[in-house]
Amino acid sequence: MSDAPSQVTAPPAAHAPATSEFDRDTAVRTREPGVHEARLSPGWAIGKALNGGYLLAVLGRALRQALPHPDPFTITAHYLTATVAGPATIRTDTARSGRTVSTASAGLFQTDERGNEVERIRVLATYGDLDALSGEIRTSATPPAMPPREQCFRATDHPGGAAAVPEMGHRLDLRLDPETCGWALGAPSMRGRMRAWLQLADGRDADPLSLLMAVDALPPTGFDLGLTGWVPTVELTVHVRARPAPGPLRVAITTRNLATGFLEEDAEVWDSADRLVAQSRQLARA
Amino acid sequence: MSDAPSQVTAPPAAHAPATSEFDRDTAVRTREPGVHEARLSPGWAIGKALNGGYLLAVLGRALRQALPHPDPFTITAHYLTATVAGPATIRTDTARSGRTVSTASAGLFQTDERGNEVERIRVLATYGDLDALSGEIRTSATPPAMPPREQCFRATDHPGGAAAVPEMGHRLDLRLDPETCGWALGAPSMRGRMRAWLQLADGRDADPLSLLMAVDALPPTGFDLGLTGWVPTVELTVHVRARPAPGPLRVAITTRNLATGFLEEDAEVWDSADRLVAQSRQLARA
Repeated sequence: MSDAPSQVTAPPAAHAPATSEFDRDTAVRTREPGVHEARLSPGWAIGKALNGGYLLAVLGRALRQALPHPDPFTITAHYLTATVAGPATIRTDTARSGRTVSTASAGLFQTDERGNEVERIRVLATYGDLDALSGEIRTSATPPAMPPREQCFRATDHPGGAAAVPEMGHRLDLRLDPETCGWALGAPSMRGRMRAWLQLADGRDADPLSLLMAVDALPPTGFDLGLTGWVPTVELTVHVRARPAPGPLRVAITTRNLATGFLEEDAEVWDSADRLVAQSRQLARA
Repeated sequence: MSDAPSQVTAPPAAHAPATSEFDRDTAVRTREPGVHEARLSPGWAIGKALNGGYLLAVLGRALRQALPHPDPFTITAHYLTATVAGPATIRTDTARSGRTVSTASAGLFQTDERGNEVERIRVLATYGDLDALSGEIRTSATPPAMPPREQCFRATDHPGGAAAVPEMGHRLDLRLDPETCGWALGAPSMRGRMRAWLQLADGRDADPLSLLMAVDALPPTGFDLGLTGWVPTVELTVHVRARPAPGPLRVAITTRNLATGFLEEDAEVWDSADRLVAQSRQLARA
């Protein structure tokens, strides 16, 4: 291996586009310490609202710029008001900057039609360096039993066709396990499960920031429980446990307790090396 | 029922002491809007450190005073530096105050030996009113299979006797499921489980604030995986799903993924009416 520049410009690797949709749409510019500007893309909308996982990834990128550590070990977002496409300001506030981890809050703000700044999302996160971790793995977790990718359903397989696919669906190569998409044909399993193979549509491989989006990218488990309509997230916490290997992810989501108008969604994300790379839980309104 | 004062002073109910240890030790005085004073009690120490669940309950009480809603629906704490017994200041910062829920951050600060104010814990929470919720329950969660309370082990049954019980153990009536306390005899099950019956030692019944303590009151699941020593919490998130019925709680904690020096602990708390009243997850350092 040489550090000398190559005479031949290598073509971009198949799984690493020069500028991915995800990287472009989560870009953040630091205006001054603690103040970051983003331009939220309509490409990540589901109906009128921007996806909460996409927004968490934008906040996650601002926190990465504000903190000395690169990777979100644990990040929690509380969704306050509906975020819309367009400009947003993210203010970060560091609580502690330690040797191995650092912790900060952040708020995402937009200007409403009357010119007032409104907080949309508040976040609290601890960052570290996944590459600095080592040591044994003693896990009893096993990857979800799922059919191969080719036997799973794309969003465009929906009886309504491509027109029925939310805008965000075009950013993703999402293949739903047939066992968990009976709801699309009016026959939910009533078990509160959702499983899918997931990649970014443009082939960009997953990384810790895109995992923040991946945990919230599937249709709500509520659909599998016979609920219809929007299931707004109140709070979402993601633990990133390892840097994902290249290749498609498997995402498995479970809801056990739908009660008094709220439900939890527990997501696990597995990489192509059969490693549990992220765990998340959200509290949503039924 | 009459509002007129009774001529006979009723004795305090068996399960509602006039002033419980928990209420006294989590008391918070609001000095000015957004600034609250607490005096942290050494009675909730495990070794030298104060228990993270106890501290979350203190923060939870400050947030209750700061917000228009009484109950923590979802609350996340990041533990920055070790909190010690003695005075503490809690600063709350409301993000949004809505009709049905309100959201705020809070920080717990102490003055170190050099006179500097140090942040110990940062919190983000959404509050609501559990009594205002109604509607159906569609749950597939079932209470943990556990022997009756009388067949479970008290901390004082430990071979080391009462001297081996951490200070916090004296605030609790904690009865460990024999299946999950082999570690105390040098024979951990290696399954990453911990289950117990739990009440406050003075008979005060559980409420949403004491649930914040209950999720972190059992010995770490790491003990059941053969780990020894302290397992410091990086982050703890609690969802309070219902107001607990009077009587002892059952707490069941599971760890599935111990990897690269971190593990998650998932806790469920069940009340005497067989209702799942709280779910929590923490990320801890092995």
